[in-house]
Amino acid sequence: MKIKEKNRIKIEQAIAELDFKFNPMARGLRTNKTYSIGVLIPRISDVFCTQVIEGIEEVLDPLNYSIVVCSSSDSLKQQAEKLSYLKNKLVDGIIVMPVNSLELDVKNDTESEIPIVLVDRLVNGSELDAVVCDNVNGSYSAIEMIIKKGHRKIGIVSGPEDISTAKERLTGYLRALNDYNIEINPEYIVYSPYTKDGGIDAFTQLITLKDRPTAIFTTNYPTTVNSMKCMMEKGLKIGEDISLCGYDQTDLFQLFDPALSVVVQPSKEIGQQAAKILLKRMNGNTEMLPLIQRLKTHLITTDSVKTIF
Amino acid sequence: MKIKEKNRIKIEQAIAELDFKFNPMARGLRTNKTYSIGVLIPRISDVFCTQVIEGIEEVLDPLNYSIVVCSSSDSLKQQAEKLSYLKNKLVDGIIVMPVNSLELDVKNDTESEIPIVLVDRLVNGSELDAVVCDNVNGSYSAIEMIIKKGHRKIGIVSGPEDISTAKERLTGYLRALNDYNIEINPEYIVYSPYTKDGGIDAFTQLITLKDRPTAIFTTNYPTTVNSMKCMMEKGLKIGEDISLCGYDQTDLFQLFDPALSVVVQPSKEIGQQAAKILLKRMNGNTEMLPLIQRLKTHLITTDSVKTIF
Repeated sequence: MKIKEKNRIKIEQAIAELDFKFNPMARGLRTNKTYSIGVLIPRISDVFCTQVIEGIEEVLDPLNYSIVVCSSSDSLKQQAEKLSYLKNKLVDGIIVMPVNSLELDVKNDTESEIPIVLVDRLVNGSELDAVVCDNVNGSYSAIEMIIKKGHRKIGIVSGPEDISTAKERLTGYLRALNDYNIEINPEYIVYSPYTKDGGIDAFTQLITLKDRPTAIFTTNYPTTVNSMKCMMEKGLKIGEDISLCGYDQTDLFQLFDPALSVVVQPSKEIGQQAAKILLKRMNGNTEMLPLIQRLKTHLITTDSVKTIF
Repeated sequence: MKIKEKNRIKIEQAIAELDFKFNPMARGLRTNKTYSIGVLIPRISDVFCTQVIEGIEEVLDPLNYSIVVCSSSDSLKQQAEKLSYLKNKLVDGIIVMPVNSLELDVKNDTESEIPIVLVDRLVNGSELDAVVCDNVNGSYSAIEMIIKKGHRKIGIVSGPEDISTAKERLTGYLRALNDYNIEINPEYIVYSPYTKDGGIDAFTQLITLKDRPTAIFTTNYPTTVNSMKCMMEKGLKIGEDISLCGYDQTDLFQLFDPALSVVVQPSKEIGQQAAKILLKRMNGNTEMLPLIQRLKTHLITTDSVKTIF
């Protein structure tokens, strides 16, 4: 909204005369609670994201907070725009699952004094609170289980190196192979975007290798679903032709025959914890800022990973 | 925000003197475009809802609209609160999937002059634009397919009678049985909430009948998934022990063996059309208001419905 310079000065004078702190621009309103929380996620159709949001709702709905959800559509540009949009809409706090770990308009955020809590992914150099999972050990436990079932040729569909969770899951994979004295085969490590269609090319690359892996580990929800699709399309049976272990959980995974082995993240709990930290910060409690909370994952082991001894 | 009465009068005088139209209260700002759209849905974790939102995003993202999503958690009280919240947040327009067909704070909506478009469910007596599916014929085609495969004992897990889509899908069921001269067995018609855990009790009731149906039609996404779960838990094989036809689509349904027969709604298109109508209304075009757009569904037929001739 444009205010003519002359008018602006007159308004400010009038307000100063009244010794009145009310400032009609957004900035001034921020000191008042709006009882609304912004949630910014990469994609609204992602099962993991919606589970996190359900956790946030469980904590904030009973306190009569309105939760507004925006999607960045996996774009840094949109993330910056939506973040500034949420701030202008005068939310009391924001929970963000960042597009990647390289960039978040953090400087601006500190200035705005609106508390921000990250979920799932850390951002390099940021001093923000965060609730994430223990991805290294989540991934490690999956690879360890696969090794214990007799596999030595284990492929991984890893995510982009600029996403902290992807990097950590790859670390877990490498660490487990090392601990069990299995040589790393660079051909078995393929990368995929973590977007909706992620995993198709990477998985296809793995299964068309001359000496293809006997087991493959997919490291997030879309890469897991799309790899399952790939196998069906090629007439390969999960757990027989190739063993598969995925990441993240949906009710439907356990209805397959065999059910799917997966690393399960406490997605609801991530949302709940993030909401609780945000509430504290919004109440002015800055104890132990920034607080990085790491939640444990658990592993579902099924016949989708074949015992090959 | 509280402004002392004395100060309020002084401020208003100061502003009046300046012949300045800027009004710091929300109402006055409404005449300015905010380039934001509110979307109010019953539940954020519902696959159908998120697909509709993706359609909305496809139309509005390229036009640089911010989309804020709120969930009513299947509660009329929350629906009213969130609706008023969205209006106060100065969105230019709102797309609503109503909790049920009985109630929406319509009077208020007309006053606020913010265009509202309904999706999926109609509201009795409302004069709002709406994009819905042809539920009667969607359901009819499923029952017709089941009949043509030889079934005569066909159960339905219907939704609450106060949701228009549920009512229409039941109508399709009754009409198809009538057209094929199959007597209606009231025991085969059971009702379930359309909430997240919907369908479990209703489906269990059907399969524990002395003379149980050979085929069952579940009429939305949660009732379909939960009925699948029921069958697995009871060791019943879909398409062999009992035939199943569901509603709504997720990629995973087609990965089961057998794949699941489902009525597929053009969920993305519902969102796209709703966004297009909303854009028209926000631009002041009131042609043919209220416009009710009905989109066709299509049927996926698989061996989850057994041929029993």
